[in-house]
Amino acid sequence: MSMPATEDETLPREAPTGEDYGLHHEDVARCVDALDAGDTAAVQAVAESLHAADAADLIEALNPDQRVQLVRELGSAFEPETLSYLQAPVREEVLDHIGPRGLASALAALESDDAVEIFEDLDPSFQQRILTQLPEGYRLILEEAIAFPEDSAGRLMQREVAVIPVGWTVGETIDFMRSAVHLPADFYDLYVVDPKHKPQGKVPLSRVLRTKRATPITEIMEGDLNTVPYTMDQEEVAYLFRQYGLVSAPVLDDAERVIGMITVDDIVHVIDEEAEDDLMKLGGVGESDLYGRLIETTRSRASWLVVNLGTAVLASLVIGLFEATLQQVVALAVLMPIVASMGGNAGTQTLTVAVRALAMKDLTPANTVRFIGKELTVGFLNGVVCAVPTGIVAWLWFGRLDIGVIITLAMIVNLIVAGLFGTLVPITLEKLRIDPAVASTVFLTTITDVVGFFAFLGMAALFLL
Amino acid sequence: MSMPATEDETLPREAPTGEDYGLHHEDVARCVDALDAGDTAAVQAVAESLHAADAADLIEALNPDQRVQLVRELGSAFEPETLSYLQAPVREEVLDHIGPRGLASALAALESDDAVEIFEDLDPSFQQRILTQLPEGYRLILEEAIAFPEDSAGRLMQREVAVIPVGWTVGETIDFMRSAVHLPADFYDLYVVDPKHKPQGKVPLSRVLRTKRATPITEIMEGDLNTVPYTMDQEEVAYLFRQYGLVSAPVLDDAERVIGMITVDDIVHVIDEEAEDDLMKLGGVGESDLYGRLIETTRSRASWLVVNLGTAVLASLVIGLFEATLQQVVALAVLMPIVASMGGNAGTQTLTVAVRALAMKDLTPANTVRFIGKELTVGFLNGVVCAVPTGIVAWLWFGRLDIGVIITLAMIVNLIVAGLFGTLVPITLEKLRIDPAVASTVFLTTITDVVGFFAFLGMAALFLL
Repeated sequence: MSMPATEDETLPREAPTGEDYGLHHEDVARCVDALDAGDTAAVQAVAESLHAADAADLIEALNPDQRVQLVRELGSAFEPETLSYLQAPVREEVLDHIGPRGLASALAALESDDAVEIFEDLDPSFQQRILTQLPEGYRLILEEAIAFPEDSAGRLMQREVAVIPVGWTVGETIDFMRSAVHLPADFYDLYVVDPKHKPQGKVPLSRVLRTKRATPITEIMEGDLNTVPYTMDQEEVAYLFRQYGLVSAPVLDDAERVIGMITVDDIVHVIDEEAEDDLMKLGGVGESDLYGRLIETTRSRASWLVVNLGTAVLASLVIGLFEATLQQVVALAVLMPIVASMGGNAGTQTLTVAVRALAMKDLTPANTVRFIGKELTVGFLNGVVCAVPTGIVAWLWFGRLDIGVIITLAMIVNLIVAGLFGTLVPITLEKLRIDPAVASTVFLTTITDVVGFFAFLGMAALFLL
Repeated sequence: MSMPATEDETLPREAPTGEDYGLHHEDVARCVDALDAGDTAAVQAVAESLHAADAADLIEALNPDQRVQLVRELGSAFEPETLSYLQAPVREEVLDHIGPRGLASALAALESDDAVEIFEDLDPSFQQRILTQLPEGYRLILEEAIAFPEDSAGRLMQREVAVIPVGWTVGETIDFMRSAVHLPADFYDLYVVDPKHKPQGKVPLSRVLRTKRATPITEIMEGDLNTVPYTMDQEEVAYLFRQYGLVSAPVLDDAERVIGMITVDDIVHVIDEEAEDDLMKLGGVGESDLYGRLIETTRSRASWLVVNLGTAVLASLVIGLFEATLQQVVALAVLMPIVASMGGNAGTQTLTVAVRALAMKDLTPANTVRFIGKELTVGFLNGVVCAVPTGIVAWLWFGRLDIGVIITLAMIVNLIVAGLFGTLVPITLEKLRIDPAVASTVFLTTITDVVGFFAFLGMAALFLL
């Protein structure tokens, strides 16, 4: 392209390197110093130098007392957008301090989807107090939004959307855009609608810009439009965006009229949340554990640990069946954790793959049988790979070939069982419409512990004594 | 907005409901039937009815023989874009069948970033064979791209980018867009550059559309631009997009000139990959495990299991130290797995939170001490919560108060240790620039097993005998 020389040197800026992005340790230190000194101007200077997302990270990096102090020092300089970047537990702390009036004016300053995201997490009684403080228009949007099902497209969407009638030309479209007031702050596609407001197609903005004014909009429109019913679950919406590489999609009401729009930046958050959710559930922790109050974190983790305690006691009961055997051959007590541990680990491998594949819709009825077959084979092969050296070590260690043979067999059995239940447990939970990530681990390790101890000690009781 | 009535009824389409999206079980069944019948036309009809992303899912749902058969039946009707949606192991199978000539023409039909993504995974010798088959222009782009570091912004970017000089008006910009040929297929932002091709700011397309022709572009430009050096790691790029809600960002060379662009749809893939990576590594499995060949999956999982076997044997050695104690009090053998299991679970909880927080840059030097303090406290509290009932059960079960007291103390110790090392292990690995997800679990469970058995049996040896 031609690049006319220009003398405009009024914008000398250095491009940042990668490490310049995000909140810096020094920003936190400067803020803490300013807070300690009670220097309001310095505190405000730090906050103002930061993007709202980084300001949110700053608040999260402070301790609870400092957070309250920061919000107080900022006063009306507090940037409403910061709220939408805060993790839920920290946001609650900040909102407690801002109060209903401050929150009402903050919400009115945000885009509708961001306002809904904050509003939906509030207590119903607090929601009512906020609503009475809001101007009519905002009140209606929020009331409508929380009437949509939780985690639905209706909650996720923004109301501001750019639609044009099917009969327009590119020129008419551009003229309309220049004069319209109720458009979103930023958007990437125009939706073309019929007189009933039903979508007929979409036009990426770059295509509008590149086309002559006289061209009818239908000529550059993509008719194959991916639309989102307002009831669609946000995970489904994320699947749609990811599968077809969408940048935006229109949301439809029951009569299939365009009522809003979802953009890919909202979806990035959903994808992050989803991924975090699976990871956290497999690890036996709740969401927002990191910033949760100590007592909440303790309680939410304890519930999982208590379940695990129950299953551990169950495994001990199995061991208890063989007390007499253990008394006579104490080597069994030394070796038995190996069998259980290997089963648990192999099962976790299978489970992790299955849970992820279910979440990504890669594990479907079409390939379930093949998947289970593969896992059984992998379980058997790795059973042999791990069990034979273990048997040899056991034989050499205790000088008893029979113990070596028994641990070898028990471990192979346990790894096959691990492969089988590592797939069956999450698939069954999914069928029962229970999140396969949340309960799988505890079921599975119970099975591998019980089978591991039972196979090893049972064979020992039968053949050694 | 005004909505002029129109009589255009030439586009009657029904909006799909949410469940219509994605590959259906029936599509797979139809395809398999057509393959079995050797009905080329029917096979092609199924493939043509699908979006490239769904066609890729179809190929993945077939077994390896069917995949080869499908590719053969499709012949030149095979849609090149499908390749970029395939998981790596399946893509390899397909490429084996397509051969270098077919791949060369497929690559030439794709956008540069998609072509690079496929090309970079090939064997170097295969890459050379492809390069000789490609037209000059494509060859240079691919050669340059693979010269960039792996997983860098240079690899991720597309070469096609929309830049305009700093002196233009909105009208000049639109006129240029209408006549330019080397623009990306779709784009969302224009980058404004100085005569040296250094970026000065960006303009979202919606803003160009909404502004009068005479307005200078600098007036609607966002000067606060997030740029990406070509060397930046893709995880950093993903952080940047996520943190600031970006839709696109320009990529700069060493002289800070714009050489390409990264768009948010590429980032969605990176975020998915990253999340999958952490999940898989914590679960002890490799990437692309699901579609990996049986023998590769077995081998990659075996390596992890063998490491775990080593640590399990280590734990057994600890138990072995107390053979004499176990011989005299067999109840200890029954109870000891409870102590180890609870430590492992509590440690995994902490570890999961820490690994995720490190990946999301939520765990920083600014809050590390607070995080460790919290985990120690949670460990202690949940230690007490779980250990006291366990102690009572043990006391009632075996009728010995001393065993109850010892298991209580051992479990509290182990849960505190779990909290401590659940944080220290991943933080230390991160400091050493080792991925904290990959090696954390094995370190941690070794520690909780060893500490659990040692604390429980050690106290028993000291106080019971």
